[in-house]
Amino acid sequence: MKKILIANRGEIALRIMRSAKEMGIKTVAVYSDADRDALHVRYADEAVCIGPPPSNQSYLLGEKIIDACKKTGAEAIHPGYGFLSENAGFAKMVANAGLILIGPSPEAMETMGNKLSAKAAALKYNIPMVPGTEEAIQDVNEAKQRAVEVGFPILIKAAAGGGGKGMRIVERVEDFEEQMQLAVSEATSAFGDGAVFIERYVTSPRHIEIQVLGDTHGNIVHLFERECSVQRRHQKVVEEAPSAVLTEEIRQQMGKCAVDVARSVNYTGAGTVEFILDENLDFFFLEMNTRLQVEHPVTELITGIDLVKEQIKIASGEKLSFTQNDLKINGHAVELRVYAEDPNNNFLPDIGTLQTYKTPKGNGVRVDDGFEQGMEIPIYYDPMIAKLITFGKDRAEAIERMIRAIEEYEITGIETTLGFGKFVMQHEAFRTGNFDTHFVNKYFNAGSLKMEDETEAIVAGIIASNLFSKKAEVSAVKESAKISSDWRKNRLQF
Amino acid sequence: MKKILIANRGEIALRIMRSAKEMGIKTVAVYSDADRDALHVRYADEAVCIGPPPSNQSYLLGEKIIDACKKTGAEAIHPGYGFLSENAGFAKMVANAGLILIGPSPEAMETMGNKLSAKAAALKYNIPMVPGTEEAIQDVNEAKQRAVEVGFPILIKAAAGGGGKGMRIVERVEDFEEQMQLAVSEATSAFGDGAVFIERYVTSPRHIEIQVLGDTHGNIVHLFERECSVQRRHQKVVEEAPSAVLTEEIRQQMGKCAVDVARSVNYTGAGTVEFILDENLDFFFLEMNTRLQVEHPVTELITGIDLVKEQIKIASGEKLSFTQNDLKINGHAVELRVYAEDPNNNFLPDIGTLQTYKTPKGNGVRVDDGFEQGMEIPIYYDPMIAKLITFGKDRAEAIERMIRAIEEYEITGIETTLGFGKFVMQHEAFRTGNFDTHFVNKYFNAGSLKMEDETEAIVAGIIASNLFSKKAEVSAVKESAKISSDWRKNRLQF
Repeated sequence: MKKILIANRGEIALRIMRSAKEMGIKTVAVYSDADRDALHVRYADEAVCIGPPPSNQSYLLGEKIIDACKKTGAEAIHPGYGFLSENAGFAKMVANAGLILIGPSPEAMETMGNKLSAKAAALKYNIPMVPGTEEAIQDVNEAKQRAVEVGFPILIKAAAGGGGKGMRIVERVEDFEEQMQLAVSEATSAFGDGAVFIERYVTSPRHIEIQVLGDTHGNIVHLFERECSVQRRHQKVVEEAPSAVLTEEIRQQMGKCAVDVARSVNYTGAGTVEFILDENLDFFFLEMNTRLQVEHPVTELITGIDLVKEQIKIASGEKLSFTQNDLKINGHAVELRVYAEDPNNNFLPDIGTLQTYKTPKGNGVRVDDGFEQGMEIPIYYDPMIAKLITFGKDRAEAIERMIRAIEEYEITGIETTLGFGKFVMQHEAFRTGNFDTHFVNKYFNAGSLKMEDETEAIVAGIIASNLFSKKAEVSAVKESAKISSDWRKNRLQF
Repeated sequence: MKKILIANRGEIALRIMRSAKEMGIKTVAVYSDADRDALHVRYADEAVCIGPPPSNQSYLLGEKIIDACKKTGAEAIHPGYGFLSENAGFAKMVANAGLILIGPSPEAMETMGNKLSAKAAALKYNIPMVPGTEEAIQDVNEAKQRAVEVGFPILIKAAAGGGGKGMRIVERVEDFEEQMQLAVSEATSAFGDGAVFIERYVTSPRHIEIQVLGDTHGNIVHLFERECSVQRRHQKVVEEAPSAVLTEEIRQQMGKCAVDVARSVNYTGAGTVEFILDENLDFFFLEMNTRLQVEHPVTELITGIDLVKEQIKIASGEKLSFTQNDLKINGHAVELRVYAEDPNNNFLPDIGTLQTYKTPKGNGVRVDDGFEQGMEIPIYYDPMIAKLITFGKDRAEAIERMIRAIEEYEITGIETTLGFGKFVMQHEAFRTGNFDTHFVNKYFNAGSLKMEDETEAIVAGIIASNLFSKKAEVSAVKESAKISSDWRKNRLQF
């Protein structure tokens, strides 16, 4: 490949261009009127304006992007994440135009883009699913029998549902009938369909995902896990690799399952298989993301593999230059998404101008961003300013480095998630690995940061003395089996 | 340790503070009047002014630094590199003041600070030295006999000499007598002493150095080599780890020798044993630097060890937490020293204001610097602006990433070595590993960069086609044995 077009904006557009540049490949940026002065436009060899904001008038218009390729002679399109990256229709348009999409086939996108077909594909390889009914049920007695088989607590959810409507958590068998009736009537009135699914309710879920790479010659490998359990508004905000809690045995099992899921759709390119992990370290397939993930840098840092370069090589028809046995975890990486959001105001976006913007530097610190001092965070797009990623020889060092980097980061003019990130890094539950996707709801509230500012000196004293002591961390990292058992024990108390 | 003072300035002061911060240790900066607004002053928890420039009125005044410790309650001093870092007298003052110097003992500094005592210490462990006379000689016949034993080409140098005076390279035995007489008479008139040393002249020397770490419990390990053969004015400007040319066998031999040299002075802390490597991959001891080196980051990147943290832990009396067997080379790192110098004007310093100053980012890029946009490079100190370090899974990737990072670096207002760095990275001799300390004299002249700018497109075409092709590099990296044989062969032609 000699020239590729990046059908995206912000940090991910820059990140892709950097890898292309290192490979000697020319880059074409596309941009909306709102992004005229954006860094990705400046960084590219060429840039084409594709319309005004919002996205459905520019970044989501496949035809305009294909036109920009023709105009500039770009042979391939990297879609990044979001926008058109998982749009099978766009993937077909690209192929029909005689261009290469740097991503999987439209068929793989389609199968994995639908929950039911994804589940069906995965089941062919006996991938574990959350136990429950495979088909919708309306009969109370039959449902109760299945619920007993699955085991309590269970989740009743409307087959036609969404947004939490017709959803009930049932802790005890004696409450089942009443809750089932409520769920059915709620589902009937909301969706005109009273059928429900019954499935096991995972009380303390952790979000673990496996990075996979597949080439066009049938080789598929996994690049270990990322843990993304720290979420706000059901969206990831802190990620790390490896997970503090996986044992080597479970890592291998999950890796094998992820490769099987990818194989079920002859997956090519970079993809991510997401799992939920419960208190017993049992894992269940959630879905597959058929694109580069926001949090891919933590995998790059622990494996030494540049995932964007691999995507480009795979799309060029090259064979993977390594096998599963060549891949090893080296060190530990943590990522904080730095959003223009106010953690003290329920993480609502806080748009404005970056009056001060100075990024941290030094050993083990990587900042993937798309802004400079004086720039505005546009209101039209995802309010992520940057990804702050730290790497250390072990989890304790990556965390200490993250705290150091957060303190070094200077942003004024808007509220950000930097202070929240420091709160997470200093929190005992995170430091010891005893956390799940309820972390934010359980431990964080609007007062947490104010308190933290006022009592920082005191907290520092506590850190030094016992609560988060260095030794505790190190042993926490080393003894993941023990962590997970502590974690299970702790879960029962919450 | 709870608080340390950093007796240095610029990038190295910041770099040390970052590690201290990650360890939860408070930092004290010292600064001259010229550095009042410097980043290291802003970054430290406390800062003490110790006088006006130049250095002999501030950074070189040991008493002022010890006073600053007493004033702030700092228990230990990190001297960085340069200034007082290898001053045994200062090390004794620090100990007498009841403070800890983060570095080796004054005795180790003293022994290694003197060429003769360093050589004597190393000889106890049979460390290879450049073959030659051990004592000064004045008799022509005796000298000639020794020259024949050593083998031609040989170097005659004045025992009392310096600055190249009384120095002669002799290629053939039949020229020896004449050249010896010239050297003796030159030495006599210059120094009043006609005695000379005879030693083997290494035609094509490479500068290879080994990083060592020793604790106060007698454990000493090496952290592999750095190659620093690309020098201008006999000073390093591009460094890398590992070397493109060492075989694993020679790496182990050099590592063992370096540990032995360190053991000869019961070395504690971080130190570097420098060797010269000849065309036959024979190596000879040069000297030991008893401090952190400028180029230490390349070692950090390939080993995952934070050398400053190790220095601090060793000075606190901790045992090394790893053995030689735990250490492994992972990937490849290259460093470019970004100096405020004009490569087109014999690398003379070019002081001024950083009108634009934007540093590169992204995967595998580390910038250790001490400046921000708008700041002045002070005339009083070493004109290094930054160290640009890239890391890749192999040498080819580290080099491509360095080129990308150089192109991304924006500096206006002064001349820098960035363009020179790109010249090196793109030069066939560097890319194939076929270079020595004569690289700059041999290949670079004031016209090189102008030519490169004008013909960049053409050069890019050549790169793509054959001369520096990707495959050539990859095989170059993998077959270091073959490289070294090519390198030897090439040497004969120069």
